[in-house]
Amino acid sequence: MTVAWEQIVVDALDPVALGRWWAEALGWVVVNDDPEEFEIRPAPERLPGILFEHVTEPKATKNRVHIDLRPDDQAAEVERFLALGATKVDIGQGDVSWVVMADPEGNELCILRSRRS
Amino acid sequence: MTVAWEQIVVDALDPVALGRWWAEALGWVVVNDDPEEFEIRPAPERLPGILFEHVTEPKATKNRVHIDLRPDDQAAEVERFLALGATKVDIGQGDVSWVVMADPEGNELCILRSRRS
Repeated sequence: MTVAWEQIVVDALDPVALGRWWAEALGWVVVNDDPEEFEIRPAPERLPGILFEHVTEPKATKNRVHIDLRPDDQAAEVERFLALGATKVDIGQGDVSWVVMADPEGNELCILRSRRS
Repeated sequence: MTVAWEQIVVDALDPVALGRWWAEALGWVVVNDDPEEFEIRPAPERLPGILFEHVTEPKATKNRVHIDLRPDDQAAEVERFLALGATKVDIGQGDVSWVVMADPEGNELCILRSRRS
């Protein structure tokens, strides 16, 4: 294989604020605090990371690509994300085992069921 | 930390076709060949992976979240992706070190500059 998955890039109105939010939510580290390209990783040399790229257009539609997170304890993580400023959103998911939330710029994310449940 | 990055989810008109395309492009393995939720990973137990979820709405705007790939040889990988059916796209990126392409359903991806260059 001759390509490696370096990162996902998330368009952001405020890359620093959104990147810091995700770093706290995930327990990751900031590896580049450039306000145009704010980059976080699970650990300094661990990939893939997430790069928040500055754009001026706000989010317009449901994202076609989103992040799924696997919690140890789903209910506790949903509460923690709400406390951080995430919101629960209805994108027509119906009755499913995961919880659909959105980050402070409205990007959808899912908190999956714990593997233990 | 109490959440782990399980996967990104990519909305797809044809999850099987798009998932197989990405598995070949990345050299990954298929871990779930469900036509509604087609899932690929770098290796069977390695995360994060990519899950292709069936939707009926075609892609409408530039994706707000996209994948960046780090090649050993940028020019060779761009040619390989073109041969697989990717296209080069202009999203107003201007003169940059990466090459913006799109997968067969139009999802943007970037082939970064090689670390050696």
